[in-house]
Amino acid sequence: MNDIFATYESEVRSYSRTWPAVFDRALGSYLYDEDGTPYLDFFAGAGALNYGHNNPLLKKKLIEYIERDGVTHGLDQATVAKRDFLATFNEKVLQPRGLNYKTQFPGPTGTNTVESALKLARKITGRESIISFTNAFHGMTLGSLSVTGNSMKRGGAGIPLVHATPMPYDDYFDGQVPDFLYFERMLEDSGSGLNEPAAVIVETLQGEGGINSSRPEWLRGLYDLCQKHGILFIVDDVQMGVGRTGPFFSFEEAGIQPDIVCLSKSIGGYGMPLATTLIKPEHDVWEPGEHNGTFRGNSPAFITAAEAFRQYWSDDALERSTLAKGERVGQVLAEIAEEHGGAIAKGRGLARGLGFEDSNVAGKVSKAAFDRKLLLETSGPSSEVVKVMPPLTVSDEELEQGLQVIRDSVKSVLA
Amino acid sequence: MNDIFATYESEVRSYSRTWPAVFDRALGSYLYDEDGTPYLDFFAGAGALNYGHNNPLLKKKLIEYIERDGVTHGLDQATVAKRDFLATFNEKVLQPRGLNYKTQFPGPTGTNTVESALKLARKITGRESIISFTNAFHGMTLGSLSVTGNSMKRGGAGIPLVHATPMPYDDYFDGQVPDFLYFERMLEDSGSGLNEPAAVIVETLQGEGGINSSRPEWLRGLYDLCQKHGILFIVDDVQMGVGRTGPFFSFEEAGIQPDIVCLSKSIGGYGMPLATTLIKPEHDVWEPGEHNGTFRGNSPAFITAAEAFRQYWSDDALERSTLAKGERVGQVLAEIAEEHGGAIAKGRGLARGLGFEDSNVAGKVSKAAFDRKLLLETSGPSSEVVKVMPPLTVSDEELEQGLQVIRDSVKSVLA
Amino acid sequence: MNDIFATYESEVRSYSRTWPAVFDRALGSYLYDEDGTPYLDFFAGAGALNYGHNNPLLKKKLIEYIERDGVTHGLDQATVAKRDFLATFNEKVLQPRGLNYKTQFPGPTGTNTVESALKLARKITGRESIISFTNAFHGMTLGSLSVTGNSMKRGGAGIPLVHATPMPYDDYFDGQVPDFLYFERMLEDSGSGLNEPAAVIVETLQGEGGINSSRPEWLRGLYDLCQKHGILFIVDDVQMGVGRTGPFFSFEEAGIQPDIVCLSKSIGGYGMPLATTLIKPEHDVWEPGEHNGTFRGNSPAFITAAEAFRQYWSDDALERSTLAKGERVGQVLAEIAEEHGGAIAKGRGLARGLGFEDSNVAGKVSKAAFDRKLLLETSGPSSEVVKVMPPLTVSDEELEQGLQVIRDSVKSVLA
Amino acid sequence: MNDIFATYESEVRSYSRTWPAVFDRALGSYLYDEDGTPYLDFFAGAGALNYGHNNPLLKKKLIEYIERDGVTHGLDQATVAKRDFLATFNEKVLQPRGLNYKTQFPGPTGTNTVESALKLARKITGRESIISFTNAFHGMTLGSLSVTGNSMKRGGAGIPLVHATPMPYDDYFDGQVPDFLYFERMLEDSGSGLNEPAAVIVETLQGEGGINSSRPEWLRGLYDLCQKHGILFIVDDVQMGVGRTGPFFSFEEAGIQPDIVCLSKSIGGYGMPLATTLIKPEHDVWEPGEHNGTFRGNSPAFITAAEAFRQYWSDDALERSTLAKGERVGQVLAEIAEEHGGAIAKGRGLARGLGFEDSNVAGKVSKAAFDRKLLLETSGPSSEVVKVMPPLTVSDEELEQGLQVIRDSVKSVLA
Repeated sequence: MNDIFATYESEVRSYSRTWPAVFDRALGSYLYDEDGTPYLDFFAGAGALNYGHNNPLLKKKLIEYIERDGVTHGLDQATVAKRDFLATFNEKVLQPRGLNYKTQFPGPTGTNTVESALKLARKITGRESIISFTNAFHGMTLGSLSVTGNSMKRGGAGIPLVHATPMPYDDYFDGQVPDFLYFERMLEDSGSGLNEPAAVIVETLQGEGGINSSRPEWLRGLYDLCQKHGILFIVDDVQMGVGRTGPFFSFEEAGIQPDIVCLSKSIGGYGMPLATTLIKPEHDVWEPGEHNGTFRGNSPAFITAAEAFRQYWSDDALERSTLAKGERVGQVLAEIAEEHGGAIAKGRGLARGLGFEDSNVAGKVSKAAFDRKLLLETSGPSSEVVKVMPPLTVSDEELEQGLQVIRDSVKSVLA
Repeated sequence: MNDIFATYESEVRSYSRTWPAVFDRALGSYLYDEDGTPYLDFFAGAGALNYGHNNPLLKKKLIEYIERDGVTHGLDQATVAKRDFLATFNEKVLQPRGLNYKTQFPGPTGTNTVESALKLARKITGRESIISFTNAFHGMTLGSLSVTGNSMKRGGAGIPLVHATPMPYDDYFDGQVPDFLYFERMLEDSGSGLNEPAAVIVETLQGEGGINSSRPEWLRGLYDLCQKHGILFIVDDVQMGVGRTGPFFSFEEAGIQPDIVCLSKSIGGYGMPLATTLIKPEHDVWEPGEHNGTFRGNSPAFITAAEAFRQYWSDDALERSTLAKGERVGQVLAEIAEEHGGAIAKGRGLARGLGFEDSNVAGKVSKAAFDRKLLLETSGPSSEVVKVMPPLTVSDEELEQGLQVIRDSVKSVLA
Repeated sequence: MNDIFATYESEVRSYSRTWPAVFDRALGSYLYDEDGTPYLDFFAGAGALNYGHNNPLLKKKLIEYIERDGVTHGLDQATVAKRDFLATFNEKVLQPRGLNYKTQFPGPTGTNTVESALKLARKITGRESIISFTNAFHGMTLGSLSVTGNSMKRGGAGIPLVHATPMPYDDYFDGQVPDFLYFERMLEDSGSGLNEPAAVIVETLQGEGGINSSRPEWLRGLYDLCQKHGILFIVDDVQMGVGRTGPFFSFEEAGIQPDIVCLSKSIGGYGMPLATTLIKPEHDVWEPGEHNGTFRGNSPAFITAAEAFRQYWSDDALERSTLAKGERVGQVLAEIAEEHGGAIAKGRGLARGLGFEDSNVAGKVSKAAFDRKLLLETSGPSSEVVKVMPPLTVSDEELEQGLQVIRDSVKSVLA
Repeated sequence: MNDIFATYESEVRSYSRTWPAVFDRALGSYLYDEDGTPYLDFFAGAGALNYGHNNPLLKKKLIEYIERDGVTHGLDQATVAKRDFLATFNEKVLQPRGLNYKTQFPGPTGTNTVESALKLARKITGRESIISFTNAFHGMTLGSLSVTGNSMKRGGAGIPLVHATPMPYDDYFDGQVPDFLYFERMLEDSGSGLNEPAAVIVETLQGEGGINSSRPEWLRGLYDLCQKHGILFIVDDVQMGVGRTGPFFSFEEAGIQPDIVCLSKSIGGYGMPLATTLIKPEHDVWEPGEHNGTFRGNSPAFITAAEAFRQYWSDDALERSTLAKGERVGQVLAEIAEEHGGAIAKGRGLARGLGFEDSNVAGKVSKAAFDRKLLLETSGPSSEVVKVMPPLTVSDEELEQGLQVIRDSVKSVLA
């Protein structure tokens, strides 16, 4: 029955190769294949399913909305659904955190928000160059790709990707070099050859790059450096935002207020496409329609997003639960790492990983876990890290069950 | 009540300025504002709502799918929903037309499919340069923007958009110049300075560019020229595909088989984000995961898309009806144009337009129509064309009613 | 004895392949090989030897200067030699023609002046894009190469050459298309996709491109178009200036005053490297040292240049003689062309050529001429044109002798 | 009398502002202004006059050549003069050093040779990106400018300079960071985002960059890194070659054999324009004429160059003398630096400098020296270094005299 995919779908498909099952239904932490076999999902749509699959609280509102023929496709028209999104987002998320942003709907995917952020930063500053970081991942369209590190992805562009300069991410040199030594020196030396940057774009924790977590003080140092040099500060929170690391925004712990924030994936709540670009009001220099797109107003996703704000961000319960579960995952991964030389536990919140020296191990662990009906993905430049990213709504039992499978899978590979 | 939008939404918003209403519900050819006032929609989500708003036939399947917890977010995993999409698309659309394409899901928006097409064309040929056309529109991310004509949109990039050369679209010189004289001469002259192109990307009818329809013989000539010179032929059918001009693909009349076809907007059927890149099997040289994205597998849209194939493309009823309604629209627009000097009726199928010499007129007509509760958008480099794009499912009564409003609106402006 | 070249000199060498002789001495219209065999030179250093080889009038001043230890290498210091150049150039060349330019010494080669002109035009306008022409040739460094047409030369860059758009040169379509139809339409249409140009760079007669001569009215039309659209007008007079077409500047006949003029080759008079960039005073916005170079002040060349101004441009004798000799060449070439179907006489002044339909013929004619001790080069995208460019100081006897060799050579090839 | 320059010469002129005199004659270590006042020249044409002004040994051969009407302008034809250059260069310079290079004449200036080197490296490798270094200077045409560090010079390009990535030069971090830590890590990490480089281009001692001398072991380490990663190694020896640091090539001490070497400035011997690109035979993949230029065969410069090889490079006398004089200069500069806090003696051979913490000092010292009839230039990103570069042929008396002026000038400024 897989013939259909092999025959009709492009060779570019990838997850269907990692997990050779045909999935049919999904609920909470589980995906079910067409035979009804449940798979515990510790990947959560690459961070798009923080509230779990088909979250019943959101589903209720979604069906109500569809049933009553609420606007589905709204371009960037004013709609009741969008208004509710904007009001609720400000009330539940931004204002309690002392943040003041205008919201752009730049098209419903991560790469749309990144492209809009880069365009806006260039418009504001009149400069072209962007500072990105080693092992960054920001998306597959040309602008986003130019700030992405992975050489295979970059190669796919087919044209030289220029206009961006990679800088070392936190701890890139294992502590051998003071933070920002290189970046700061290049900025201050008018003979360095560094093109004057419009902006820095940074993930506070690199998911695709290998679950590399930056320290709050590093992030703050980078932020201060940008402030000092008039460089805009963009946080790509597409994968790490919406609670993945605990707080709604992954940069909260660092106590900074980025100029522009990119959100997508879990912002829609129910796994439907949505993205927002948050812009400090003084930077909102767009002309009407200067950046547009057909699916900016994916209204069903506004509905589920707003309901998610109400359900999960009216208090700090989810944040605390995520941090607690994250601690537990971290503890188990550390134990596993200790048992097996050459492994290392990485990450924070519920964005965790287990890195292996031998870059073949992670893929084998993922495969062993799949045999045990657990979905785990790898990341990192050589796919050397097993990514552990369950839904934030995972139950303690599911968590323990998944962690045990990880333990067993690692053991089976390294035994 | 609009305060929320002015306060919280970015200045980039545009349709909400053209149509200052807050929409709540939608059905068929109508949008309803929050007071229940109906607006007849002759824009159809910029071509994303060919089957009308919240099409009941598709809605039924959508709700069933959500109710039974079908997978919502499926990355690019194999799912029952995607398999149904692929099988039905091949059975109902491709095979009856003698077309053989592999389908890539490149991310759910028009610009995603265009970016994937350009990347693939560059990979296949090892060349960088793309031939685009005057007044083309392909999207807002950097790759798509570089093949887009509009200078305001291009300016938004903030970096020089290079790697593409615009060629004159059909009838750009009002018949003064033989077709392809310029392009062909540049290709054949090794001293012309034209960078050797990887591909041509073309819309068979330019929607955003001002409802400029190319003749089938022009398209065929372009196709032959590309074949002769080993240049890949990409049709961007994002806005004009899925029946907008009558046949499923807008290039069918020309009798050509493009190397790559970009689809989005109405492909999902219900106005939810979806896009596909169709690739001739011999060109499907992607590495697994070389182009990816979080929302490639927007499964609810697979469900509505497949149902739409079954409902609307099992026979030629929709195609014939679209052509007939299109004729009717064309007839009325021609009458209006005749009544008012300096106006011109444009387009084919249900992608129609009314162009005005004075570029201020179209905007005023759109405004006058809005006052009469009809939604009309303008297009063209100076927004000089009123775009007439009702849902293909518009009833004859609705059509006549809308055409009458257009008549009245033009009269009110030009009187 | 040629072993030295084959062993030690790079494969890039080319003229030494066309003319397999080792030259030792040169005087007037003749080069002599090491055996003393004279070769009549109808190439004149690709236009660098308009006053002939080792012109005795200039040689006298050159030797005096060297003997008395005049400054040889003067960076861009103020020197007596440079002052004399500037004063004489203004007195003898610019002022009599009603031209007012400031002179930059941008480095002593053609490509240096072109690069400086492009940089300055971009600085003045704040725009990046340049309009070049089909079959243009402007030099081998990256900036100049990007405005050059030849695909083999362009390929040598090894990176995509962007930031320039080629437009059709005069008569590119053999009269089928009104002048500037394409360019003007692209400029006026804000949706054309043409990047807004900083400048046009044009040769009034394309030497390397195949002795394509533009009509004065075409040049004037182009100039007017640029004025109208605020585009700077750069004439590359490196090969066609300094009297090659009759008047000192090749654009005089068109009655225009370019914003920037590039001169090199014969400007030094004696075949030593020198180049100047002429800039309308209002455009001289360079910062001190913003463009520099070691050999800007090649003082011996200032000496011979200034003497050449005095000797050859104090009256119109040279101009009249060039025009008369040019007429004679044109007449003979036309006769040859008439005798041989498929040939065409091209050019004006003493920049003449004989084009052949069969692109192999020109190379054979050049070879046949070399066997008869006449140096002729080919040009054009397929090297299909025999270039006839004797020194302007060629005597009538030498001219007739050379023309007879051309006649015989063509006959020998086409017989 | 300076009016001529202010009126007729572009504002870009710079040395004539630093040294406001009108120079007329020159001999050995002296320039004379038009009143006959001698100026001791410790700049030596920015390294173009290593054998002094109008060197009598070379002058003799030059005048003989001109007198006997030796070919002056030889395009890239085979000439007796060029053959002599090639043979003598190989006999006196390359072979004794165990070096095997083919020589390209890429046009007679430093930027011509750099552009040819970059083009060739890209052609050989099929890659676009070049690694340059902080504070590098390679020239003013677009290709060379893209690998140059100085932000003012870069700004002059008017387009984004991409396709090159700057790496830290030796000791850029004052010993805080292991050599190549950054470069090596970026190369080895497939996720670093560094575009795969075609070549490294490096000066062994940065003249314009502020007399920054790299250590032989650093250069060797860089060379090894390039070998390991298949990156071509280009040495730009335009300013530091031809004996400036002692040995003919500045990289000899490091014991390496670069893939490509760029020479210009003093290679011609007499201050006339000439440049060569030295290419390892296996890399000489140029097509005939793929890179060309009018003044590649500046024959008088071949004559003086070849004579200079014979006179100065038949034994190691010049090398030893340069090293000895360099030691003396270094000693005096160290003494001056010691006397004045915040100053530092820099450089090696006769490429020496005195750097000041306060970046205004160097310019004042240069001015004070000019008042004392000594020509000194500044360099470095903030012009904070006084450059001390007398001709290699400077006499001991002249050297002491100049050093005394430097002492006095520094004292007068810092007193």
